[in-house]
Amino acid sequence: MLLRERLLEILAEDIGMGDLTTEAVIPDGIEVEAQIIAKEPLVLAGMLEIKEILDMIGVRVLKSIDDGVEVSEGTVLAQIVGDGRAILTVERTILNILMRMSGIATATRKLLRKLHEANLKVRIAATRKTAPGLRYFDKRAVMIGGGDTHRYRLDDAVLIKDNHIAILGGVGRAVKAARSSVSFTKKIEVEVSSPEEAIIAAENGADIIMLDNMGVDEAKKAIEALEDRGLRKRVLIEISGGITEKNIIDYARLKPDVISIGALTHSVRSVDISLEIKRILN
Amino acid sequence: MLLRERLLEILAEDIGMGDLTTEAVIPDGIEVEAQIIAKEPLVLAGMLEIKEILDMIGVRVLKSIDDGVEVSEGTVLAQIVGDGRAILTVERTILNILMRMSGIATATRKLLRKLHEANLKVRIAATRKTAPGLRYFDKRAVMIGGGDTHRYRLDDAVLIKDNHIAILGGVGRAVKAARSSVSFTKKIEVEVSSPEEAIIAAENGADIIMLDNMGVDEAKKAIEALEDRGLRKRVLIEISGGITEKNIIDYARLKPDVISIGALTHSVRSVDISLEIKRILN
Amino acid sequence: MLLRERLLEILAEDIGMGDLTTEAVIPDGIEVEAQIIAKEPLVLAGMLEIKEILDMIGVRVLKSIDDGVEVSEGTVLAQIVGDGRAILTVERTILNILMRMSGIATATRKLLRKLHEANLKVRIAATRKTAPGLRYFDKRAVMIGGGDTHRYRLDDAVLIKDNHIAILGGVGRAVKAARSSVSFTKKIEVEVSSPEEAIIAAENGADIIMLDNMGVDEAKKAIEALEDRGLRKRVLIEISGGITEKNIIDYARLKPDVISIGALTHSVRSVDISLEIKRILN
Amino acid sequence: MLLRERLLEILAEDIGMGDLTTEAVIPDGIEVEAQIIAKEPLVLAGMLEIKEILDMIGVRVLKSIDDGVEVSEGTVLAQIVGDGRAILTVERTILNILMRMSGIATATRKLLRKLHEANLKVRIAATRKTAPGLRYFDKRAVMIGGGDTHRYRLDDAVLIKDNHIAILGGVGRAVKAARSSVSFTKKIEVEVSSPEEAIIAAENGADIIMLDNMGVDEAKKAIEALEDRGLRKRVLIEISGGITEKNIIDYARLKPDVISIGALTHSVRSVDISLEIKRILN
Amino acid sequence: MLLRERLLEILAEDIGMGDLTTEAVIPDGIEVEAQIIAKEPLVLAGMLEIKEILDMIGVRVLKSIDDGVEVSEGTVLAQIVGDGRAILTVERTILNILMRMSGIATATRKLLRKLHEANLKVRIAATRKTAPGLRYFDKRAVMIGGGDTHRYRLDDAVLIKDNHIAILGGVGRAVKAARSSVSFTKKIEVEVSSPEEAIIAAENGADIIMLDNMGVDEAKKAIEALEDRGLRKRVLIEISGGITEKNIIDYARLKPDVISIGALTHSVRSVDISLEIKRILN
Amino acid sequence: MLLRERLLEILAEDIGMGDLTTEAVIPDGIEVEAQIIAKEPLVLAGMLEIKEILDMIGVRVLKSIDDGVEVSEGTVLAQIVGDGRAILTVERTILNILMRMSGIATATRKLLRKLHEANLKVRIAATRKTAPGLRYFDKRAVMIGGGDTHRYRLDDAVLIKDNHIAILGGVGRAVKAARSSVSFTKKIEVEVSSPEEAIIAAENGADIIMLDNMGVDEAKKAIEALEDRGLRKRVLIEISGGITEKNIIDYARLKPDVISIGALTHSVRSVDISLEIKRILN
Repeated sequence: MLLRERLLEILAEDIGMGDLTTEAVIPDGIEVEAQIIAKEPLVLAGMLEIKEILDMIGVRVLKSIDDGVEVSEGTVLAQIVGDGRAILTVERTILNILMRMSGIATATRKLLRKLHEANLKVRIAATRKTAPGLRYFDKRAVMIGGGDTHRYRLDDAVLIKDNHIAILGGVGRAVKAARSSVSFTKKIEVEVSSPEEAIIAAENGADIIMLDNMGVDEAKKAIEALEDRGLRKRVLIEISGGITEKNIIDYARLKPDVISIGALTHSVRSVDISLEIKRILN
Repeated sequence: MLLRERLLEILAEDIGMGDLTTEAVIPDGIEVEAQIIAKEPLVLAGMLEIKEILDMIGVRVLKSIDDGVEVSEGTVLAQIVGDGRAILTVERTILNILMRMSGIATATRKLLRKLHEANLKVRIAATRKTAPGLRYFDKRAVMIGGGDTHRYRLDDAVLIKDNHIAILGGVGRAVKAARSSVSFTKKIEVEVSSPEEAIIAAENGADIIMLDNMGVDEAKKAIEALEDRGLRKRVLIEISGGITEKNIIDYARLKPDVISIGALTHSVRSVDISLEIKRILN
Repeated sequence: MLLRERLLEILAEDIGMGDLTTEAVIPDGIEVEAQIIAKEPLVLAGMLEIKEILDMIGVRVLKSIDDGVEVSEGTVLAQIVGDGRAILTVERTILNILMRMSGIATATRKLLRKLHEANLKVRIAATRKTAPGLRYFDKRAVMIGGGDTHRYRLDDAVLIKDNHIAILGGVGRAVKAARSSVSFTKKIEVEVSSPEEAIIAAENGADIIMLDNMGVDEAKKAIEALEDRGLRKRVLIEISGGITEKNIIDYARLKPDVISIGALTHSVRSVDISLEIKRILN
Repeated sequence: MLLRERLLEILAEDIGMGDLTTEAVIPDGIEVEAQIIAKEPLVLAGMLEIKEILDMIGVRVLKSIDDGVEVSEGTVLAQIVGDGRAILTVERTILNILMRMSGIATATRKLLRKLHEANLKVRIAATRKTAPGLRYFDKRAVMIGGGDTHRYRLDDAVLIKDNHIAILGGVGRAVKAARSSVSFTKKIEVEVSSPEEAIIAAENGADIIMLDNMGVDEAKKAIEALEDRGLRKRVLIEISGGITEKNIIDYARLKPDVISIGALTHSVRSVDISLEIKRILN
Repeated sequence: MLLRERLLEILAEDIGMGDLTTEAVIPDGIEVEAQIIAKEPLVLAGMLEIKEILDMIGVRVLKSIDDGVEVSEGTVLAQIVGDGRAILTVERTILNILMRMSGIATATRKLLRKLHEANLKVRIAATRKTAPGLRYFDKRAVMIGGGDTHRYRLDDAVLIKDNHIAILGGVGRAVKAARSSVSFTKKIEVEVSSPEEAIIAAENGADIIMLDNMGVDEAKKAIEALEDRGLRKRVLIEISGGITEKNIIDYARLKPDVISIGALTHSVRSVDISLEIKRILN
Repeated sequence: MLLRERLLEILAEDIGMGDLTTEAVIPDGIEVEAQIIAKEPLVLAGMLEIKEILDMIGVRVLKSIDDGVEVSEGTVLAQIVGDGRAILTVERTILNILMRMSGIATATRKLLRKLHEANLKVRIAATRKTAPGLRYFDKRAVMIGGGDTHRYRLDDAVLIKDNHIAILGGVGRAVKAARSSVSFTKKIEVEVSSPEEAIIAAENGADIIMLDNMGVDEAKKAIEALEDRGLRKRVLIEISGGITEKNIIDYARLKPDVISIGALTHSVRSVDISLEIKRILN
């Protein structure tokens, strides 16, 4: 029900006072069958969301593929039956949702497969660099792709970043301040820019250390520094900043727990999906 | 004021119950100076929107670049002064807005420059393939980049597409139906897939003809067919579907009025922009 | 679904914490049959909207007249069956909607009949002078009555008015500015106060010319001036301002394309409709 | 602040994605002076509301007439100074509010004057027959005109009507049921259709008796019946249904406490008010 | 439907992006049977509200106790069947509603029983000292307990309090001002702090006199003063301020019409209610 | 700004169409000075929230006590100056907020003092048993009192409870399921009912163990069992269920990390705070 409210807003944005074209040219009461079709290989995401929309407007889903399934070009993702006007009115909105979410899921899955093929077990995580207002959709698409959602919001976990430290003036002090005032239910993560900071963070009780914008060699040194002091097992290590399809294997070989990638959600390539009217039923 | 409501929703999505980290580690009442910096060359878009956010939280903008200006890497886009906690709390949201909008404006401007350099005067337009819920932001970014916004919503103008024709069964009938029932303030556009349909549409009073998913040769034939029958000047011609940076010049040489490109908004590459705390003022 | 949100707000405004009277005097669980009855001849409008309300509260509509039908006094517009408390609680709201919308539709139809009887084919259009917040309802009622909705909103089409020209200082300049910066999907209309302005507007590419607050003779001159210069067919002509039932035929004889009338929505006479409980069913 | 939310919705309805025309033809940053002018004699209402709108968009009101003041044709209702684009964008919305509210206030005042001139002291009240969603604005306009707002909502007071009695089967029973279950802070009003019902209602403790849709003679009989039994002073008497400018004096001579008139708000004639740009200030 | 919107907000507050735990550990599609159980004796309130929630998420209520019924410890308040994930996700919210509302109803009923056992017929009323945002729920729980809801809002009835009089400077003047400007549908109540003020209020036409923060003896004097002057029957008397379980009988013996108690809603003891999964059905 | 939206809703609930009394009896434009006064000793909470309200309506706060400060009876919590009507209209709402929040903060502080006096360092935490819709306010009040907020929402951290285990059938399985599918940024807590379950939870990687509804002896055994197996340091221990002022010291002596108490927010005793008009300034 909560999702419906959000989807209604998205629909309202596109529909405004009504779908002029459909109301003008499509007779009332025509029942049609339509297919939603993958125009390229993809990992499907967004089916749950568009089913909510279809349900709201009384369109039945005869069969459909589940979110998370990898499909080839030409696959019928859903076969639907309902009022012709209603289907045409929501067509663009449901495709926009499916194309973006599946685009994110597909890119996430691709990176995970790459790690898998190299026999490396590291989580791929999203960041808060999502499209404005689309946090839920973008994070869910990453999850469907097999990724880790990371923080949904600023109240989700503590993440002390460079700008915090710039103001407060010291990693150790920041971690201690967080530990004493934040709920025991929260993890504390610290973004560090050197092996020294990583050690201070770990020693002061950080749960997670983020190696931020480090080259592979720097990252390696930071991890070794933690291992040398017996601090590696006390913390989770996340590598972030500048990770691409090309260098991800190099970073993953350092065996961090997590690699996070902003581009998964801030620079999405939508996959191509279309809706085709197949038959008029009455 | 209307924009503020929307920006508040976007902020709320990221903040939730509060910025745990900032509240825990940054003392109350610290005034800081910060810079928003372009980390790559870009066409700026989103400055108007983030100024609304900064104004809402009482942060002053000392100087800033205007939307639409093309800047080089390293340019300070805005210099701001205000409460440290407030700035850190909105940092990610304002960067997310700037990075996406500037990404769209930059890509739009690049295509326009390409046409300009080839001495071709054709409008570049967006489509309704925007990120769900981001119609306003995505369209505005296209406009700032120099593009045409096309329809904002389904009530904006009539656009008769393949699926409408599939149900109604004929371009001519559809155009006539629209002409008689839709307000005289609206234009009527028709998506056609052959020179024959283009002619029927024009003869029946369409204001705009969209040549959809045609190869360059097909598109050429359609335009010539219209010219041969003296219909070319009566209509605007829009070419759409499968246009890329590579083939855009070929299509533009056919002298359509508009070329529209879904990828401008559905597959955005965000440009890199960061916020850096420069000084503590008290 | 979008309409429901709006109708809920309207209901909420009337109901507040609950219908004190009904809860106090009507026992829970009483099923009743009721009729909605036209107390005077009218063109029905609002049936679609009140059916949404009745559906929301679980009341069944056994039979009903369609929006747009002209009925005589005493006609049963709808026969409904449902929970007595629910029906009484929404009674006033559904009647308020029906009475206003049907009032608008009836007045619109009356003017159109007048034109029809005089064998004149001119569109009757509404303006943006609707009751605040009721744009959708007022425009839809005009449409049901047979009228043209004109612009829904300020982003619907360009309409350059006297105050715009007062600031910018010239019709021609204004039309050119609009043509170059506004999307190709939009029409451009110009309000003119003299034949000279009409000619300038048409020559600069206006799609629609509004003859504003002109007497019949002035309007005639303006139209003739356009005809003399061969510009009449390039534009649509709208006459607006001071049109009443009495003078509409005189204006219509000038063969404009459209006559628009603010009073259709700003000075509505609601028609009389009542709801009567007919039987208790249990 | 509460009013602002509502006004924003009303503005949003008209503005949509933006005022295309103004953005296209009016340069940014032009400061203008404008006047809001009464085009006919009227009782002003809505000034408080439009000042909220003007304040929201940063427009200053140099001088203005107060709500409730009766003005002659040509009176400058407000002189304002501010950004040209902002003023033109809200022009229609503020005029729509002023024209409707002043129309209601003017009509209310007219009836009160009529009673006053006949030396009759009876309250004129509105009903719940307001435009859907405009309860606040319509009731406030009646109040400014000098009328009584009557119930705002269904939870405001008890009003047992014909349909309630049709289901429950008896005025006396209904009044008792209400008296025992409704808060002691609420008045109980009963709509009666005969002198007998009026007596039963008064005897059972109704605070207000509404003589509904009675002719003058019937109403007279009902009031006399109450007087004869010494019940007149225990109750307030409201006459409602079919009251017009023509017959109001006849009803008022019966000395009811209140006469209520649905048409005050359901059939409003908007008064004519315009906004004119006077000067460009920069 | 109106209630649903409010309940959705309450649910949304608890659920956020989703019930992490349930999604992680409970398989999709498991149907369970659960019971809602009273862990102490109580008067049930909130069943109507939680049924709305259960209906929204598709959970069926096999049997349930009605609001207002007094039950012993261990009573099964409702037996429900539905999707395991859905039930666990709303568990806390529905218990929070039931526990608070039943706590209020139970405390209200207890005081009423005390009066009943002492053979005293006085209404027990709530005040506007409800939890912020919970006016509807708190007032309804008082009503279910058998109490009087008093004013829902500031627009419900006039209540002239000490701070009003402090500014205006006189009870008589305040009552007159209210009588002349407020709708005839509203009652006027006055808070008085002495027998003298009580008399002035009654003589000036107050409908209700509130004896505020008076000791039993003072209250007695005030009531006698009204009786001595024959004013007692013209007004309702409400005693308020400092009423507890211990002194309520002493006040009630003075035979006021109403005793109002802020603590009924501002200092609620929630009763203990739990939800237990009984069986997995598939 | 986000808080303002919520406070506006709370104000709207109380104000409705307007404060009838104040509008009727208090002249427009009267400036007053008022004091908010503690009528009993208390820990202040809610000052930040009511300052937002006062700021919204243009009332100035001359001086005020900070949230978290413990004050004695009679302390002036805030001295304010502003429009008389505005202050009286919000009086009840701001007192309702202050009284509830300060009631929660005071109760929390009292328990913490008790632990402090016994030289025991254990966190006191709230639960999700807050008043429906008041999560933010209730949690913040606990924090101001010195307590731990625990989970704000269901997406905040994993907490596997008895009902989850009832469906899934095993603590170990549940913890593993959560660990593998939930983000690495989240802690995992498990509610256990025996020492055996505690051990299984700890061994399977739970971050926090909640000893639920255990007597002091049982809780002791569970903690010793963890210590015996060297698991105590790996986890945080939270004791919950049935903790009262009387037994809290006994539980605290077991040295858990956290004791959580639902009654802190579900059974709040509001503290007494009043607002008094001191002077009229004009």
